[in-house]
Amino acid sequence: MAMVQPKCRAMRSCRVNLIQARCRRFHTRPAAQSPSIASLLDYGLEDPDKVVVNGLVQSVRKQKQVAFVSLRDGTTAESVQVVIKPKQFESLPDLTTGTAARFTGAWTESKSKGQNHELLVKNVKILGPADSTFPLQKKWHTPEYARTIPHLRARTSANSTTLRFRSDAIAAVSGMFQQHGFTQTHTPIITSSDCEGAGEVFHVGSSNKEKPGEGDDGTFFRAPKYLTVSSQLHLEALAQAVGKVWTLSPTFRAEKSDTARHLSEFYMLEAELNYTEDMEEVMDVVQNTVCSITDDLLGGSRVATELLNSGLDKGEDATMNKELIRRWRGGSEEFHRITYTDAIKLLQSSLHQFEHEPKWGNGLQAEHERYVATTIGSTDEAVVPVFVTHYPKAIKPFYMLPSSHNEDGRETVDCFDLLVPEACEIAGGSMREYRLEPLMQAMQANKMIPSGPMPSDAELGDLKWYIDLRRWGSAPHGGYGLGFDRLLGYLGNIPNIREVVTFPRWVGRCDC
Amino acid sequence: MAMVQPKCRAMRSCRVNLIQARCRRFHTRPAAQSPSIASLLDYGLEDPDKVVVNGLVQSVRKQKQVAFVSLRDGTTAESVQVVIKPKQFESLPDLTTGTAARFTGAWTESKSKGQNHELLVKNVKILGPADSTFPLQKKWHTPEYARTIPHLRARTSANSTTLRFRSDAIAAVSGMFQQHGFTQTHTPIITSSDCEGAGEVFHVGSSNKEKPGEGDDGTFFRAPKYLTVSSQLHLEALAQAVGKVWTLSPTFRAEKSDTARHLSEFYMLEAELNYTEDMEEVMDVVQNTVCSITDDLLGGSRVATELLNSGLDKGEDATMNKELIRRWRGGSEEFHRITYTDAIKLLQSSLHQFEHEPKWGNGLQAEHERYVATTIGSTDEAVVPVFVTHYPKAIKPFYMLPSSHNEDGRETVDCFDLLVPEACEIAGGSMREYRLEPLMQAMQANKMIPSGPMPSDAELGDLKWYIDLRRWGSAPHGGYGLGFDRLLGYLGNIPNIREVVTFPRWVGRCDC
Repeated sequence: MAMVQPKCRAMRSCRVNLIQARCRRFHTRPAAQSPSIASLLDYGLEDPDKVVVNGLVQSVRKQKQVAFVSLRDGTTAESVQVVIKPKQFESLPDLTTGTAARFTGAWTESKSKGQNHELLVKNVKILGPADSTFPLQKKWHTPEYARTIPHLRARTSANSTTLRFRSDAIAAVSGMFQQHGFTQTHTPIITSSDCEGAGEVFHVGSSNKEKPGEGDDGTFFRAPKYLTVSSQLHLEALAQAVGKVWTLSPTFRAEKSDTARHLSEFYMLEAELNYTEDMEEVMDVVQNTVCSITDDLLGGSRVATELLNSGLDKGEDATMNKELIRRWRGGSEEFHRITYTDAIKLLQSSLHQFEHEPKWGNGLQAEHERYVATTIGSTDEAVVPVFVTHYPKAIKPFYMLPSSHNEDGRETVDCFDLLVPEACEIAGGSMREYRLEPLMQAMQANKMIPSGPMPSDAELGDLKWYIDLRRWGSAPHGGYGLGFDRLLGYLGNIPNIREVVTFPRWVGRCDC
Repeated sequence: MAMVQPKCRAMRSCRVNLIQARCRRFHTRPAAQSPSIASLLDYGLEDPDKVVVNGLVQSVRKQKQVAFVSLRDGTTAESVQVVIKPKQFESLPDLTTGTAARFTGAWTESKSKGQNHELLVKNVKILGPADSTFPLQKKWHTPEYARTIPHLRARTSANSTTLRFRSDAIAAVSGMFQQHGFTQTHTPIITSSDCEGAGEVFHVGSSNKEKPGEGDDGTFFRAPKYLTVSSQLHLEALAQAVGKVWTLSPTFRAEKSDTARHLSEFYMLEAELNYTEDMEEVMDVVQNTVCSITDDLLGGSRVATELLNSGLDKGEDATMNKELIRRWRGGSEEFHRITYTDAIKLLQSSLHQFEHEPKWGNGLQAEHERYVATTIGSTDEAVVPVFVTHYPKAIKPFYMLPSSHNEDGRETVDCFDLLVPEACEIAGGSMREYRLEPLMQAMQANKMIPSGPMPSDAELGDLKWYIDLRRWGSAPHGGYGLGFDRLLGYLGNIPNIREVVTFPRWVGRCDC
């Protein structure tokens, strides 16, 4: 059913017509605002002789005739060169690395190398000094060191790029979902249900008492509650209500994993499509999600340039940048799609020595995922993500829809994982069991509810409402969850997820 | 400093030029997709003889010659009329209220009243039946009843409008912030600090043990941790890094308030502007936030029409809609600004009998806020929100910047609350104390850290990092927090916040 190009969004049948738009687009007081360094570099100025620039001093280089200050404000990884005459400088002993200052002057063409323009200073105002104890002096710091000062490391060039990359990526996916008629939702954080059944949840208790941390007195919500491990169950309810929904929501796991890929608190992008029988449609949306971000990068956004320059700043050669561009290109290609059964055959036919033998019925280990992603998806030109579909029913959660056709009589479910070489799994999704009886049977088989023909409401417990969704007006539907931080790390060449998130939380660590 | 209109966003100084965009905008398989009812109503169709529509049956009206089905899919509050011949209907006993079904037919001009077009059915497929136990039969339900089934009530017309209103509002504010150069951030949910100092926090414990809910064993993060009550402190760190930041983040209070305005879990929109000395700039951003949403509504968005129709559906007369439009108009006007001192004078000069006597030095009670908002902001044409600024220092948190000029020698801080008649306070903000010594003195005065010239790191405790932000390169800055759910309730005429949020949590209640 192809639709004609949108012609209008005029509403028919509006019974009220009292509206007389008196809107006025956005109040600003431009006279009071100084331009950011990003806009200073990008745009012309009406009066280049009277420019006010705020920023943090990166370094000061004194010469006989003149002093050069390198200034950044975090709106771009680039710095501007501020030129100060010695006489001015003498009265400014505080202008050291880390200082916040305001410079007024003329924005003029630079005679020296390294920049087109520079700021010839007329006036300097120290806003906030920094002395030699400032922990981020101008030199390279290890990620491990920077991680001990999360509240300050965001001021580094690389970390501020990461912050802006996240912001751009949110905008990109938001635009994609809007364009495709999805409703953005806010799913609950405090929940009763442990969707994945892994049991590794944080519980939530009111500590409105003298000794905080002494435990949940159980009275606030009258029953134990947890931090959500996935918005999926709630999204399914919302998809029944408005069709196509998505959320970008914090998600929590009390896993004691101490790896570069796991956090206890992370952002998950989840979407759910009602009235969908074809899993290909769900995979298309996953692909569009990744593609909306990589299209921006390939289009040469500011952040794209910064990510590419950032590697060079760290002393890496162009190899890593080639790799980065291969990842971005792959994100905008048609993703590969292969069944789990074929993936197992591929692994078994390989000459590679795996630590774990690939065997139908077992989950894919990280080494397997890496092999499949690399062998199928990686070329000189691009690293194209790979969908592995139709895993064995026995190793997947209760809510997944059994496949209608089973190869060789082996039971599988309509599900997929999205794999890339370094980060391994970055997304996973499935069609959902939308029929009442089979869902309850699957829950019984998983010992989530008692056996027998008709469990009572009390026996259905915290998942009664989820079962209810199948009781009335349940249509075929499917959805997915994508690890947003993990995707940013992959596309931004940030190997450890603890550098993707400004204030990372993992076992034993929750600073600031 | 006015800037020339943007000319280009081309990056200078890009050292790498390997990018050859091969992007392809968005994969879709239109053949597999049925149009949503919203797009069916808005757009023409290439082939109106072969339309596939999915939805939930709202009601069935049987006549001798024909049966009419009212169908909604939640993409609009409107339903489409589906026309079924008796012969077809006989074989479809399950087509009752609440049933999910797929109809194939011809989209033709309607001869009867109430709609321009209707669907003449060739084929019907029941996707998910619903019997007479479906709790949302076609009749009006009280909010209290609907609240007992949050997972199902989203399917009602009014609740699906609320969901789409939230989505539109997120898009509107996101666009505004992007246009103004703000970076969208994800601030942490699990934190160490209780920003407001009210002590009414939820603690977070790992329940990876046999008896969940038995309490925090204190080992997961090695110290007590809480659900955030505000992102402000973390936003301040991020504003130092990239200038202007915002977040739309879940926020938690373990308050035992059982009112129409309070939830234990709610979304707060918070923004922070570095290098800002003028509180007017911060208030401008608050105004732009509200205005971005009301401009859309005044522009006649689909949701605006639905909100207006929704009141009429509930049997309200046009009075409430006039009120709604007055609120929207007010949101796009220039907001009033009045000092706390003047507000007190206004209250004291009023003939109105207040339960609490208005007195300089005391906080404003809800009755006071209502009076100020109504008297100053409310006219026949519009309800314009009112900023009340410069409250007494003694009744405001430690982090607010003392005003430089005190009227009558009475100490105030540079802060504001945004008031509207019904919802009272919907936003609050301030300039922040950005200087090290005065901040520590304020914390000492509030007994947050020990007195004396130089407390140790251990004595600074969980807020050491926040103090650190002032130690190096701290610039004047300010920001605000806006209760997003409360604003939606106000602009959407949803008096109880428990209807604004699909899965509300408050003391004693956390369903689903």
